[in-house]
Amino acid sequence: MADLSMFAGNAEIRKVPAGHNFFFAGDPGDLMYVVLSGDVEIIINAKIVETVHSGGMFGEMALIDRRERSAAARAKTDTEVAAIDQEQFISLLATHPFFSIEVMHAMTERLRLLNQALF
Amino acid sequence: MADLSMFAGNAEIRKVPAGHNFFFAGDPGDLMYVVLSGDVEIIINAKIVETVHSGGMFGEMALIDRRERSAAARAKTDTEVAAIDQEQFISLLATHPFFSIEVMHAMTERLRLLNQALF
Repeated sequence: MADLSMFAGNAEIRKVPAGHNFFFAGDPGDLMYVVLSGDVEIIINAKIVETVHSGGMFGEMALIDRRERSAAARAKTDTEVAAIDQEQFISLLATHPFFSIEVMHAMTERLRLLNQALF
Repeated sequence: MADLSMFAGNAEIRKVPAGHNFFFAGDPGDLMYVVLSGDVEIIINAKIVETVHSGGMFGEMALIDRRERSAAARAKTDTEVAAIDQEQFISLLATHPFFSIEVMHAMTERLRLLNQALF
């Protein structure tokens, strides 16, 4: 995530301690997060399936299809995130094409990893 | 894909017969495709992992991360597609936020399916 200025007015900056649960699988999803510092673990069925580092993002799927969370997310370390709601997400997509590419890039990485693991 | 007019000037419309191979795993990827009519099978290690119907898309991952194709794509039926190159893709993202959402929606569906299958 090269340009954090795009989040000015388009996100809420939050600091959370290690161990903080952002959400659990099955929760309704109303926010996505960009990690500004720290590490966040993505957990499915008690298995850590990904660790998101500074510059990465998580929680975008529920904003895109408005379905429930498919995984849990927990701060592995003290973590600072930009929290982006549905309206801010659409605004960012409309005004920052680079943000669209970043979201798609994160999703592509996950799809390639899952394809390799599964097939 | 509700509004096909966005592809005017931003895509090449192609008709291909059943059995046509759009690409194979490992190929360099320079185009993504939106299916206008017909069905396209996505194949990994000789296994059909998805069938893309009219309104769906495929091949976007290689445009996003500029890596090789992770799967093969083959027309199951006579098929009409809109073929979109890198420059047109960026142009569509910048001018049609709805297109960004459609791409992300397709990727989210795949991620949820793979998450269910894998974990």
